Amino acid sequence: MGSVDDHASNRPKSFFDQWIDSLFGRGQNGISEKNRYGLRDRYTYFLQDAAANFNQLNFRLNSKEANQIDHLKKMLLLMASNAEQCVQKAVYSLVSRDQASALSAKEQDSVIDQLEKDVDELAMKILTLGVGEDDLRFVAMAMKISTELERVGDEATTLSRRSLELMKEEPLKPEVDIQRIAEIVVEMLKAALDAFVYRRPDEARRIILKDKEVDRLNKSIYKAMTQCMISDSGCVTRCLHYITISKSFERIGDHASNIAEEVVFLCEARDIRHEHTT
Amino acid sequence: MGSVDDHASNRPKSFFDQWIDSLFGRGQNGISEKNRYGLRDRYTYFLQDAAANFNQLNFRLNSKEANQIDHLKKMLLLMASNAEQCVQKAVYSLVSRDQASALSAKEQDSVIDQLEKDVDELAMKILTLGVGEDDLRFVAMAMKISTELERVGDEATTLSRRSLELMKEEPLKPEVDIQRIAEIVVEMLKAALDAFVYRRPDEARRIILKDKEVDRLNKSIYKAMTQCMISDSGCVTRCLHYITISKSFERIGDHASNIAEEVVFLCEARDIRHEHTT
Repeated sequence: MGSVDDHASNRPKSFFDQWIDSLFGRGQNGISEKNRYGLRDRYTYFLQDAAANFNQLNFRLNSKEANQIDHLKKMLLLMASNAEQCVQKAVYSLVSRDQASALSAKEQDSVIDQLEKDVDELAMKILTLGVGEDDLRFVAMAMKISTELERVGDEATTLSRRSLELMKEEPLKPEVDIQRIAEIVVEMLKAALDAFVYRRPDEARRIILKDKEVDRLNKSIYKAMTQCMISDSGCVTRCLHYITISKSFERIGDHASNIAEEVVFLCEARDIRHEHTT
Repeated sequence: MGSVDDHASNRPKSFFDQWIDSLFGRGQNGISEKNRYGLRDRYTYFLQDAAANFNQLNFRLNSKEANQIDHLKKMLLLMASNAEQCVQKAVYSLVSRDQASALSAKEQDSVIDQLEKDVDELAMKILTLGVGEDDLRFVAMAMKISTELERVGDEATTLSRRSLELMKEEPLKPEVDIQRIAEIVVEMLKAALDAFVYRRPDEARRIILKDKEVDRLNKSIYKAMTQCMISDSGCVTRCLHYITISKSFERIGDHASNIAEEVVFLCEARDIRHEHTT
């Protein structure tokens, strides 16, 4: 996976290599050498496809701006992949009581943090060039989406920390149905990123609607855990971890919804925030 | 407090009037007619002073841009005042078991939500005019700060909701030391907004350092509540409310720190995010 960009001084290494590094090559705490979910293939395809899709939009810009905006898009995609992976690892660690995945998710969060700064720096640089209204909207949304993704990384870190705490204790009986909320939220996040890549506002709107189910599940876990704590003081610590974990998933759902709102704004120049609040 | 702007079609009413309305005039649930804390005076001074301070910066722009940026600043100040007030009301409702304040805080949150949209809309408009690098940084930061303030409003809503729940039950004994974390966080928020208004990066840096104490206090409340739940199942529900409340304050502290980071970036063009994470 060598890249001609490796020796260019002013640009980072090939994004794909960098990303694969961050996922699989980071010391002892990395997820196992073999890709457990076949994610490598999925993302190779995802990134290539996304790049092709975006390149169609760039022909109208002069080459310098096109390069910069293309670069920004790639950074955002890289950030998105990292954030999604980070959550996936946290979920895996939680479900399989796998310590290495939890540690790896925490480590990956710092990659996301750095990318957030890089995205903002480049976005500001592009804005000084004075781009057209459509690209301006893209750049502004890039800064917002990057903030959301950075916070997704933070939530994944919270999940991992609590997952590590839970591993120190006996599994809770009866089992907490954390997998359902985890699945929906991961789906929402994936869909939000896809809606962004392929500019699909209708898809984005569907994501926002899903947020209600997530809220409902979070509330039901909160209630179940409260009951569990009232009836057995021996499970207080573990139940509190699950309450935090569930809330963390609920927040990732919020971030996915926020990204979806940005996508609608990006595609339709329409601000739909706070329309769905009660 | 009539304003000559009241009849201008394209601009909102006088900000001060609008703000005073949002604070004191909103139906039955508003905070009492008399200003309990003398906040009215404080903010009259705050807004006038801030406006004078910012006006000095505008002479170099042509009048149209200057107007727009001035307008953006005022909107952000209005939003900041609302956010701070919202938290103040939530704290008051919590400490004094005052239902009206809690309801008023929740209501005020929607004013903040609307302002967030207005700030973004105007910011995008200004960016299409193509401003200089310094103003560009201001506009970009305005969008970020407005997001932080919107989330402060959300946290104040959470605080109010939990405060209302707590009012339904007997006070917890021994009392939870929620006032200390509340005070520090409100101070941080005020200081962050002052640092922004007066462009004081050193002040901003001090705020970021305070965040550690807030984290420490939040952890200690979490521990105390856990112990309380283990030893007495009768206090589980109330302890959970306090855990959420304390976490909510901790998040407001995070938002204040984020604003402080934006202020450093605004003044020094230096991105200090993630430098203080461990």
